[in-house]
Amino acid sequence: MRLGVCYYPEHWPETMWKDDAARMRALGIDYVRIAEFAWSRIEPSPGEYQWDWLDRAVDVLGDAGLKVVMCTPTATPPKWLIDRHPDILPVGADGRVRGFGSRRHYDFSSPSYFEAARTICRAVATRYGRHPAVAFWQTDNEFGCHHTVVSYSPAAAARFRSWLREHYGNIDALNTAWGTVFWSMEYRSFEEIDPPIGTVTEAHPSHRLDYRRFASDEVVRFNRMQVDIIRAHSPGRPVAHNFMQLFTEFDHYKVAADLEIAAWDSYPLGALEEQWFAPEIKAKWLRTGHPDFASFNHDIYRGMSALPFWVMEQQPGPVNWAQWNPAPLPGMVRLWSWEAFAHGAGCVSYFRWRQAPFAQEQMHAGLNTPDNRLDIGGLEASTVAQEIDAVLKADGVMPVVAKVALIWDYEAKWLFEIHPQGADFHYPRFAFEYYSALRSLGLDVDVIPLSAPLDGYSMIVVPPLPVVPAGFAARLAASGAQVVLGPRSGSKTESLTIPGTLPPGADLASIMPIRVWRVESMRPGIAVKVNGAVTGDAYHWRDFVETGEGVQIDARFADGHPAIVRRGSIRYLAAPFDETLTRTLLGDVARQAGLPAQALPDGVRISRRGALTYVFNYGDAPYRIEAPGNFVVGKQKVEPQGVAIYRS
Amino acid sequence: MRLGVCYYPEHWPETMWKDDAARMRALGIDYVRIAEFAWSRIEPSPGEYQWDWLDRAVDVLGDAGLKVVMCTPTATPPKWLIDRHPDILPVGADGRVRGFGSRRHYDFSSPSYFEAARTICRAVATRYGRHPAVAFWQTDNEFGCHHTVVSYSPAAAARFRSWLREHYGNIDALNTAWGTVFWSMEYRSFEEIDPPIGTVTEAHPSHRLDYRRFASDEVVRFNRMQVDIIRAHSPGRPVAHNFMQLFTEFDHYKVAADLEIAAWDSYPLGALEEQWFAPEIKAKWLRTGHPDFASFNHDIYRGMSALPFWVMEQQPGPVNWAQWNPAPLPGMVRLWSWEAFAHGAGCVSYFRWRQAPFAQEQMHAGLNTPDNRLDIGGLEASTVAQEIDAVLKADGVMPVVAKVALIWDYEAKWLFEIHPQGADFHYPRFAFEYYSALRSLGLDVDVIPLSAPLDGYSMIVVPPLPVVPAGFAARLAASGAQVVLGPRSGSKTESLTIPGTLPPGADLASIMPIRVWRVESMRPGIAVKVNGAVTGDAYHWRDFVETGEGVQIDARFADGHPAIVRRGSIRYLAAPFDETLTRTLLGDVARQAGLPAQALPDGVRISRRGALTYVFNYGDAPYRIEAPGNFVVGKQKVEPQGVAIYRS
Amino acid sequence: MRLGVCYYPEHWPETMWKDDAARMRALGIDYVRIAEFAWSRIEPSPGEYQWDWLDRAVDVLGDAGLKVVMCTPTATPPKWLIDRHPDILPVGADGRVRGFGSRRHYDFSSPSYFEAARTICRAVATRYGRHPAVAFWQTDNEFGCHHTVVSYSPAAAARFRSWLREHYGNIDALNTAWGTVFWSMEYRSFEEIDPPIGTVTEAHPSHRLDYRRFASDEVVRFNRMQVDIIRAHSPGRPVAHNFMQLFTEFDHYKVAADLEIAAWDSYPLGALEEQWFAPEIKAKWLRTGHPDFASFNHDIYRGMSALPFWVMEQQPGPVNWAQWNPAPLPGMVRLWSWEAFAHGAGCVSYFRWRQAPFAQEQMHAGLNTPDNRLDIGGLEASTVAQEIDAVLKADGVMPVVAKVALIWDYEAKWLFEIHPQGADFHYPRFAFEYYSALRSLGLDVDVIPLSAPLDGYSMIVVPPLPVVPAGFAARLAASGAQVVLGPRSGSKTESLTIPGTLPPGADLASIMPIRVWRVESMRPGIAVKVNGAVTGDAYHWRDFVETGEGVQIDARFADGHPAIVRRGSIRYLAAPFDETLTRTLLGDVARQAGLPAQALPDGVRISRRGALTYVFNYGDAPYRIEAPGNFVVGKQKVEPQGVAIYRS
Repeated sequence: MRLGVCYYPEHWPETMWKDDAARMRALGIDYVRIAEFAWSRIEPSPGEYQWDWLDRAVDVLGDAGLKVVMCTPTATPPKWLIDRHPDILPVGADGRVRGFGSRRHYDFSSPSYFEAARTICRAVATRYGRHPAVAFWQTDNEFGCHHTVVSYSPAAAARFRSWLREHYGNIDALNTAWGTVFWSMEYRSFEEIDPPIGTVTEAHPSHRLDYRRFASDEVVRFNRMQVDIIRAHSPGRPVAHNFMQLFTEFDHYKVAADLEIAAWDSYPLGALEEQWFAPEIKAKWLRTGHPDFASFNHDIYRGMSALPFWVMEQQPGPVNWAQWNPAPLPGMVRLWSWEAFAHGAGCVSYFRWRQAPFAQEQMHAGLNTPDNRLDIGGLEASTVAQEIDAVLKADGVMPVVAKVALIWDYEAKWLFEIHPQGADFHYPRFAFEYYSALRSLGLDVDVIPLSAPLDGYSMIVVPPLPVVPAGFAARLAASGAQVVLGPRSGSKTESLTIPGTLPPGADLASIMPIRVWRVESMRPGIAVKVNGAVTGDAYHWRDFVETGEGVQIDARFADGHPAIVRRGSIRYLAAPFDETLTRTLLGDVARQAGLPAQALPDGVRISRRGALTYVFNYGDAPYRIEAPGNFVVGKQKVEPQGVAIYRS
Repeated sequence: MRLGVCYYPEHWPETMWKDDAARMRALGIDYVRIAEFAWSRIEPSPGEYQWDWLDRAVDVLGDAGLKVVMCTPTATPPKWLIDRHPDILPVGADGRVRGFGSRRHYDFSSPSYFEAARTICRAVATRYGRHPAVAFWQTDNEFGCHHTVVSYSPAAAARFRSWLREHYGNIDALNTAWGTVFWSMEYRSFEEIDPPIGTVTEAHPSHRLDYRRFASDEVVRFNRMQVDIIRAHSPGRPVAHNFMQLFTEFDHYKVAADLEIAAWDSYPLGALEEQWFAPEIKAKWLRTGHPDFASFNHDIYRGMSALPFWVMEQQPGPVNWAQWNPAPLPGMVRLWSWEAFAHGAGCVSYFRWRQAPFAQEQMHAGLNTPDNRLDIGGLEASTVAQEIDAVLKADGVMPVVAKVALIWDYEAKWLFEIHPQGADFHYPRFAFEYYSALRSLGLDVDVIPLSAPLDGYSMIVVPPLPVVPAGFAARLAASGAQVVLGPRSGSKTESLTIPGTLPPGADLASIMPIRVWRVESMRPGIAVKVNGAVTGDAYHWRDFVETGEGVQIDARFADGHPAIVRRGSIRYLAAPFDETLTRTLLGDVARQAGLPAQALPDGVRISRRGALTYVFNYGDAPYRIEAPGNFVVGKQKVEPQGVAIYRS
Repeated sequence: MRLGVCYYPEHWPETMWKDDAARMRALGIDYVRIAEFAWSRIEPSPGEYQWDWLDRAVDVLGDAGLKVVMCTPTATPPKWLIDRHPDILPVGADGRVRGFGSRRHYDFSSPSYFEAARTICRAVATRYGRHPAVAFWQTDNEFGCHHTVVSYSPAAAARFRSWLREHYGNIDALNTAWGTVFWSMEYRSFEEIDPPIGTVTEAHPSHRLDYRRFASDEVVRFNRMQVDIIRAHSPGRPVAHNFMQLFTEFDHYKVAADLEIAAWDSYPLGALEEQWFAPEIKAKWLRTGHPDFASFNHDIYRGMSALPFWVMEQQPGPVNWAQWNPAPLPGMVRLWSWEAFAHGAGCVSYFRWRQAPFAQEQMHAGLNTPDNRLDIGGLEASTVAQEIDAVLKADGVMPVVAKVALIWDYEAKWLFEIHPQGADFHYPRFAFEYYSALRSLGLDVDVIPLSAPLDGYSMIVVPPLPVVPAGFAARLAASGAQVVLGPRSGSKTESLTIPGTLPPGADLASIMPIRVWRVESMRPGIAVKVNGAVTGDAYHWRDFVETGEGVQIDARFADGHPAIVRRGSIRYLAAPFDETLTRTLLGDVARQAGLPAQALPDGVRISRRGALTYVFNYGDAPYRIEAPGNFVVGKQKVEPQGVAIYRS
């Protein structure tokens, strides 16, 4: 449980650095992330490195007792590099080159850039790899931000062909797997295959899915190249990457597998504005963020790396990049910080130390205002720093232990995006709705990949999972947990075709013997009543289910088709349901799993870490904890935007 | 009255073919359409034809007693052809080439493609032209689908210039006809003229309209080339094309003039979702389709060819291509099938025999599920097959005789699209609203072109008709029918200019002496009251009418301007009206024409063919036929989604 | 106070000209604008001028006693010129060349076009510069229409680099001013700088703002070239340009500085439909236009030139170019004309004499219909002509004297567009809302630039003004007026960075010592209550204000932060407020300034010019003037769409 901050010495007169460092320490900050956008200052001209200023900056921070998180600067290649190698620039789905002048203007598949990135990484790692103040590393910055994973350049096309050759071996295998006989799309060689864009109507879905897999693998490869260099030159220092919330164009699990620390950047208000939430939800949580959005991400990244996850960038006030940018209510920066720790964060690092008065992000708040006075966020960070001491004294650094697991899968996102069958079939939304229902029942949740061990969980929730990998069904059954499978589970093969025996496919049918013989998607506003063990409405989608042996029907749609079916401890939901039905249903399942689920008041959330219970109040009414123990932070009455931590 | 099915032997193991054919026959199917997307299997490499598999497929079908509808495969040129002749690809209005990877990726004006299409057509026609199992032909597939009629390639530009030269003779005639003096757009030669895209603000409307006419003519030419080849090699077999509902970028009448059979592809639910209907209408008819949409198209295509029209593709269950894809209610596949026959269809052919488990349309239902079990649609098709026998026994194959004609004109659609003057002035919508009002009054309707004979009709309804061809007004008057002219009728000359004497132009003014001296368009939500012989609201548009000799004013707008004027049996409506006013008005006119118009209950529709009356119930309440005769199908009480056929 | 008309002799048979001219005179028209789109007739082929027809047209008009406003035809270069110099065509932000086929298809930075424009201007000015019938000139037509100011061509890029070099001297100065160190966007030379488009995420705001300034300066340069040529060849004839309402991509003040007459084109209904107004506002004023929109523009252009401003194009009936185009109510053409005169217009010139029956604007009404009968607009113009005589007799040509000034600044528009921080922060809207509140209080308003003298005003209203130029604050204070400063005033430096001492910056803080330490933007529908001297709601935006010495808080937001602060006669508003609060507040301020502010009935507006008071009724109820004097036009009871003019 440590605090950090993002700092840009290159943006400020050197005369300010020492005072900045001293004030950071005084505030209770331990870690300072630097240099991720500093390439043009490190190498102002080709091959001419200027280390002196950065050396001095690292020394000033180190001398003040701060530990540096050093970054590779590859998110912002300078203009001279682009002018020398224009093929670095990525190409959009519209066929246009995406130009210099902001950031992330590079193609993961560009050989020129791969080489240039390798060179600058080596230079930075060599220079600072063994510097005593450098404690951690970050590769690049926010892979995937601004939709920069998928490029359609000639370089990407060439590497895609190699990727296909490697995966399919020969062209006949590809033709068969994809089903290119449809519409005479058969290929005679891998050389005939182009990126799946610009077609008259939608391109082949299997082609598109493989392109997305390829693009994701390119990110993994690029990151691994950096990690290898850093490891070679900076032994013993953990390497992190700062993932960005729901920027899901690549498989975060695969990138994280090469890191010691999965970090993420948490902007609760910007996320609320930019994500799928309905206008009334955006209005309701305008200045607090949605009570489950940051948690959802904490719980995703907690399991992704060996060391505790970090919040590498924590929103400290209003941001600049959403369509509208309201100010958080007083108390929220503290609340968000504690929520991260409650979910297992190793460090919460604020973005940024001081609001920059220029360029694209000049309206993004920092812990300090541009005229260098401590802002509300800074004051709250200081409070958190003091509270951390009390919490560590009370319980030390303890793990989060959750009995509920929720599956989260990046390929599922890509597949449903490519092949929605209903315009608003949005995987993150459906996964989040299950997660939010669980959290509103007071449950702690691990959000895990398909490959994670399932032992030890009492309850496992599987949001719509189109491709069920071999063995997963058996592991689900063997776990002994209460299982909830979302609609469309098992609906596709690895190649994005329909399973021969129809969904949910042979594997899943071995534990849930049903046959989904028809589906329908419905426009917003259309609901179908559900009656049975639970009642309510279904939206967006329906599976038409034929039940097999031993499967009982717990609820039916108004027209009689099964809505919820169950065999033993395994359930299959034939549709997304409304919020109340979902919460009621998951509450029942949780209690059957022996978990103490109970609906919390609106906006109240509870987490457990070690021996402590953390209570957060996102709502607008005070919440009185019923039977608390000894308070480490806060008290029994938790005011709006308040936090309480107690040992029961 | 026959049933057919669309079948793709190339998608399935050859071992399944024989069983498929046997089951088709058993179901009551007579016709099997094949091969329209099979080019890459017929000619896998340039010039190397592989006929063996297709020979065997045709034989299997023929041996089972099925008749084959053989297609030319030109909707999906294979990759090797595109790589050899990249100029085949069409160019969008955004200037970008539309690429390979789906279908219809060809430019009607490409000389390379014209030649390649000619070659493959000759090959297929030569191979199967006299095969005893081949009974019919289909050219290409769904001309116009995915907005593929209008291309902006260099080839199209060159042929457009020739087209203009042919139509105008010399450049001065063009400059005068278009009025290029406006904004100094005058041309000195045809070579100076480019396609009308990419301009700073809207391009010249006359230029745009001629480009649309040219593009339509290119489709006619392409289709005629295929028809000529087929006729030469397959004497005696009728040739069809499957038009697509409201894909109106080309003149269906002109293409149909070269065919024996005008077929169309009927997808009532997809159409409802994708067309102009308001959200509440889409919700109301979610799982039935709009009661008048399929009928409207049946009535359009009925008159288009010498042989009875076909539904070449009938929706058999949920589709995949609309934004949302609900499942039809049980009974609807049967209802839709009977509705086609009631309107005169020669064959209803379901798309497709079995749902494909791969590629773009894997979520499009078939008569069978991908695991080869008969789906609801298949069961209902089987019911229809049995009912056909009963109906044929009762009445034979009889014609539809309608006393009401509604004019439908493709150029009108293009003109109003180019030159709307109010953003939502949508010709198909206004034509459909008149049609729907007529049908809700229980009337049978012929939807006819401007060139059709008008004799024998008691009532003629003319939706907004901007260009009134010479002689049409005289023919209208000579018909003796009650006539209703929609707003904007006669508002433009052939060159898209305003008639010298103002709308409705000299010709129409000879039978309806009015002068439209001003117009206005109004944003959605704005209504103007109408009072007089009928009352209600006007929307979207108003003509300001000055009446001439013998013209009486039947209703006025709230500000006193005439809303409905009449001279004898001819009426002119100065605006689109609300649904109730429109129905009341057309009901009054119908009764004046001696037709038995009476408003049917919501969702109930009635058709007559031969001596039989067909009743369809799209609604959600049972309908009791008041004074029926002998029932051939169904009974006096028609349940929701039910059909009844009786001889009165 | 004169009437004019726009006339296109080249569109009509020469046989009609004489009658047209006679009828113009009979109607009371003095001025006829011609030739702005006639290039292809003046120079049908390169270098071959055909003056004869234009000579005759000018003679016919002059012989009839009309005075000609001759135009340069540079808004519509002919096709042969484009084919010779394709680099004339501008390039859009999407990188695509904008083609020939409509108008304004030229790049202000194209050297070829600058030269071609110079040549044709010289030819026209030489031919008609001293013709006795030519009384005025107009350069080009509607600079900025169809978003044609900003181009991204290679020519523009090259001239932009020169512009930057001129403004910054050396590249280090630019890097520092912009803050390119952020995201490594530093440049090593001006040659490295491209236009700010096509970037992965938003381009640098300072870069964008300078590009907009550059593009505006290109228009000034182009116009000045034309003015210089005209002055040289047509001494003594005033030169005008017809600006277009709220086409703000260039600085109208700077172009007007080179002219004798600032004219503008007034289309109240089209503007209402196309501008920011909410649907209910568009419905309310559907056929009258918003009561303050035309006035706002009159008051902008009144101060822009030495001679009285003109309305060069006055809407005479329905137009063609808005999404929907309703017809004005009878009386509105007269009302609009008188409103222009009340605000100081020297001439109201109707667009156009006769509706053209062809090309893009064939649905744009004229004073006459295409069949050459006088339309309603023509009749009302005739009424105005007669009333002008009465008014001139009563009071002569007198100036408008306003005691209230409202600041209007083009750079503010560009800056907030580039850097909104809340998606709907729309500068013209906020400025207009202040203006409309003032007008609804019966006040006369000067809309002035930042550079205008402030002496003599009793009240000065400053809509959000991001960049406060040196000395402006001092001038404000010295004026002695009651001052109202809008939110975000002083929020940026000239380089689009945050002032070192935070907003409102040192200059403004010298008279209003506050510190804006935080801001927030809020999505539509979010309101924050305001309580204090006035009460109501704040929308869109909030400044969080810390008050300095002598600053009192007149109202607070619900959470306690200051909403309205004041020091002496200077107020700062921390947010945009609702309509009622704004009117109440500005009414209070006006009364403190000694002005007779009182809320007028809905839709009623009052103006004063010389000794006369003008009353306009946009509403739907009659308005009775309380204590009028002698009526020159109209009477005490002003009917809807009525006008009254009296001497009190």
